Amino acid sequence: MRTFILYSRGWTKPFSEKDLPGAGRMDIACRCVSAALFISYTIRRDTRFFISLNGGSQPIALCFDGRIRKISPDERSIGLWISKTLEKAQNGFGKEWKRTDNGILYAQKSFREILEELEKEGCEFYLLDEEGKKIEETTIKENPAFVLGDNLGIPKGEEKFAERVAEKISLGKTSYLASSCISVVHWICDGKGI
Amino acid sequence: MRTFILYSRGWTKPFSEKDLPGAGRMDIACRCVSAALFISYTIRRDTRFFISLNGGSQPIALCFDGRIRKISPDERSIGLWISKTLEKAQNGFGKEWKRTDNGILYAQKSFREILEELEKEGCEFYLLDEEGKKIEETTIKENPAFVLGDNLGIPKGEEKFAERVAEKISLGKTSYLASSCISVVHWICDGKGI
Repeated sequence: MRTFILYSRGWTKPFSEKDLPGAGRMDIACRCVSAALFISYTIRRDTRFFISLNGGSQPIALCFDGRIRKISPDERSIGLWISKTLEKAQNGFGKEWKRTDNGILYAQKSFREILEELEKEGCEFYLLDEEGKKIEETTIKENPAFVLGDNLGIPKGEEKFAERVAEKISLGKTSYLASSCISVVHWICDGKGI
Repeated sequence: MRTFILYSRGWTKPFSEKDLPGAGRMDIACRCVSAALFISYTIRRDTRFFISLNGGSQPIALCFDGRIRKISPDERSIGLWISKTLEKAQNGFGKEWKRTDNGILYAQKSFREILEELEKEGCEFYLLDEEGKKIEETTIKENPAFVLGDNLGIPKGEEKFAERVAEKISLGKTSYLASSCISVVHWICDGKGI
């Protein structure tokens, strides 16, 4: 299983698909879902993508995995489904994951709680950071979980929390879009058969 | 200069940004623009991205380069600007490139004509194909131009035309989204300083 976790400032309440950037740069989260889950004509069954939404009073966690259905790789479609999921969440939900009809998981979890859960599962964490060790020189272990931030990065406190368990790795000195990072990490892991 | 050329079945007439997939999978072209031109908080000045639109009676060529302005990396924004450019094109245009106010180039050129023009410029062509030589084992020369197809690939005739001048290279056995291919190719070229 390959895991990605995005720290996002995306809204935790429903939003209009006409202005994804205005909903806490939800466009970034949508592009990342596309890059993480979709390959030509199908989705990756061995990958899951967590979004930690922090653009509201209480954080919400979403997870897209190989069981998503009826979702296309375009940002608008993904944005619409995220917004519908947040609508559902407004009717009450807790710490336990719930799954929508089209397979999106949601729960009232913070970024730290997502990491703690994955730590218990035995994931090996890698924090994407321009100052980290070159990914080409890093041994990526089985069951890797890659941690990324949105356009504003991961807040200092959360970053420190991630650093406790994560190895910092770098794709180089260029500051890539989060979705591009995911595409490159997938390609490297595919090549190594991880 | 790094160049990408996408063969797309995207519409050659204006379309609604509410249904980019319905406009000849225009969402693919938009995602590719984002992957090709955008890095964190800025755009690549040394890259240009050609789209050969073939979803109409006459093909139209668009080009996004380091001179684009007021365009955000989200699909909707890119789609809106493409549609506006096609509106302009309906008022008449020819074989010469014209530039819109926000920097998008457009001309009445076919896929073959784009390649011919780039050939005269001295580009070194690479055709992305799962059956090609592994990109890791390929020497990417200066001034590379990477040729990709949309979800249905490049039609046989056009592919043969490209093969005349292009080396076939592969990112592996996985069939990636075109936008993911662009992200990976960029990363490889960045690392090699090409």
